[in-house]
Amino acid sequence: MAAQNVQALLLTHLPDVRYLTGFTGSNAALAVTPRKAALFTDGLQAREEVESARVVIAKKKSAQTMAAAWLEQQQLTRCGIDGTHTTIALLEHLRKAVSGRLRRSFFQPLESPLVAAQREIKDATEIRRMRQAAALGARLFDHILGFLEPGITEIAVAAELEHQARLLGAEAMSFETIVASGARSALPHGRASSSRIPRKGFITLDFGVILNGYCSDMTRTVHMGRATAEEERAYAAVLEAQESAVAAAKHGVTCGDVDEAARSVLKRAGLARYFTHSTGHGVGLEIHEGPRIAANQKQPLAEGMVVTIEPGVYLPGRFGIRIEDTVVINRNGCEIITPSPKAWIEL
Amino acid sequence: MAAQNVQALLLTHLPDVRYLTGFTGSNAALAVTPRKAALFTDGLQAREEVESARVVIAKKKSAQTMAAAWLEQQQLTRCGIDGTHTTIALLEHLRKAVSGRLRRSFFQPLESPLVAAQREIKDATEIRRMRQAAALGARLFDHILGFLEPGITEIAVAAELEHQARLLGAEAMSFETIVASGARSALPHGRASSSRIPRKGFITLDFGVILNGYCSDMTRTVHMGRATAEEERAYAAVLEAQESAVAAAKHGVTCGDVDEAARSVLKRAGLARYFTHSTGHGVGLEIHEGPRIAANQKQPLAEGMVVTIEPGVYLPGRFGIRIEDTVVINRNGCEIITPSPKAWIEL
Repeated sequence: MAAQNVQALLLTHLPDVRYLTGFTGSNAALAVTPRKAALFTDGLQAREEVESARVVIAKKKSAQTMAAAWLEQQQLTRCGIDGTHTTIALLEHLRKAVSGRLRRSFFQPLESPLVAAQREIKDATEIRRMRQAAALGARLFDHILGFLEPGITEIAVAAELEHQARLLGAEAMSFETIVASGARSALPHGRASSSRIPRKGFITLDFGVILNGYCSDMTRTVHMGRATAEEERAYAAVLEAQESAVAAAKHGVTCGDVDEAARSVLKRAGLARYFTHSTGHGVGLEIHEGPRIAANQKQPLAEGMVVTIEPGVYLPGRFGIRIEDTVVINRNGCEIITPSPKAWIEL
Repeated sequence: MAAQNVQALLLTHLPDVRYLTGFTGSNAALAVTPRKAALFTDGLQAREEVESARVVIAKKKSAQTMAAAWLEQQQLTRCGIDGTHTTIALLEHLRKAVSGRLRRSFFQPLESPLVAAQREIKDATEIRRMRQAAALGARLFDHILGFLEPGITEIAVAAELEHQARLLGAEAMSFETIVASGARSALPHGRASSSRIPRKGFITLDFGVILNGYCSDMTRTVHMGRATAEEERAYAAVLEAQESAVAAAKHGVTCGDVDEAARSVLKRAGLARYFTHSTGHGVGLEIHEGPRIAANQKQPLAEGMVVTIEPGVYLPGRFGIRIEDTVVINRNGCEIITPSPKAWIEL
């Protein structure tokens, strides 16, 4: 806090609040000073879930107003808030809760993410949970391989996958399930549609679950029927790019270098112009967290980061291929926690 | 715009952008002047979906930066943005895209919701879509009645309901499905858990689907096994409160009066202290929209509004009951579009 010239923090981004306190509810404001922490919420379950902060149940006033008033009572003059997630209206609301001439300067929006940087490095408990979520994802992939057949809709595939996820204990999916078949596989974000699985062509399956609050994320691309030599070559290139980036990922290597490891393979294969997104992103309590694994990113990977490695190629109107693992970064390399096979699958 | 002293609007809240243009993607900035509209996005489907605005695909720069630069080129000096949804960081990002001395004053956060008020009144197409979504919800309720039995988990019930929703064409659920059984029915927001459906006790089912972008929302409470006289009396009181509020809801009546219609019934039954939330809310492209149907709300209902009416009582540690319909407000009353039975159901 000292480095950012504030004496306290007011946090309202729910994943940050959950990260620091364990609170899973949908409305909360967490006030943190160097000596104290207080969580304001209307969610009664906070009394059971939260040990690291004093819990105050907001009834008449909003949790945010109460947190602001509490901070003022601590005799502070400058309190940091998260500019990336706080809306202009919420800042005004908070300011109105502070009395007197300090009002305008009391809350200081901070540009640099507060808890986000801390959340990039997962501790042992978090890594265990991410392993469990990823393992559930891998089971779903096994299951869905037996379900895929020509003629059923992409939505039916997604429905089956999501139903199994629920039955196996997932709280929810971590993002809208992507089932993109045939020419639709060329859409990087092809949400499951009413299109039918073709007799011939790729199917890209990109999905994740939330288990104990933590997100999984994986993509596999399989082929229905006999593939063309061009399709097989493109698949081999994406797989080599993905494995090359996985091999490059370790503590101390920059995110840009990991991206380049994938991109250079696709360049050699003449496919780089079809690789239209970045190589990966951090994942944890949210499906998209830092770091960004993209071209020219100077941020180094660090032990305990959990990131996706997901190069792909998308030939408009023809076909697309993406292969994605989630990996845990360690000192000497990284460990894949999405153990599903990546070798060519023809159904 | 004139009333709010701005010459243009920059909209980035996605449901607002979808409402005005039909664009369904996940990243967009819509610039609107009295004569022109331009949609900036990296989502290629905009070219197919959007007719009411010029479409510009953002590649090198962010859609937001491009929209801001475009607005500056229109020779404007004051452009409104939505303070309720715009973050402090996005406002800074937008300001940096404007050159010169106008930078600080160019974007004016507006307190009053811009498109939100317009969205409260649904047109005929929207009402048709909401009817379809609500009808799908009612089919799910019929289906799940045949599925409920003692011993299965609440999660299995939610999984079955969500799977059917998908198979019947829902894009997604409109919020996390609530299945709260036995003593858990006393939790107003009891997300489906690993608790098992009891032989005796209430089950509250609160769920909704998204169909063609529009949300449904309904709640029914059913009883497993023989109920006590107290449970039956409480159910009758909630049903009377709900029907009383439905009877009160029409064009010109204030939201506060509709809330009071429900609350006064529960007061007479000695249950008002267990009715711990408001009576309802608008619903449409988002699950929670205006108006708020709550105590002392002076806003009048208006023809074309689509709102929920959902009183409930929650006796901590014992049981809870909520009954919710979605209704369309018209000149002389309102029409229920969630046609599932509300009479006592004992399974």
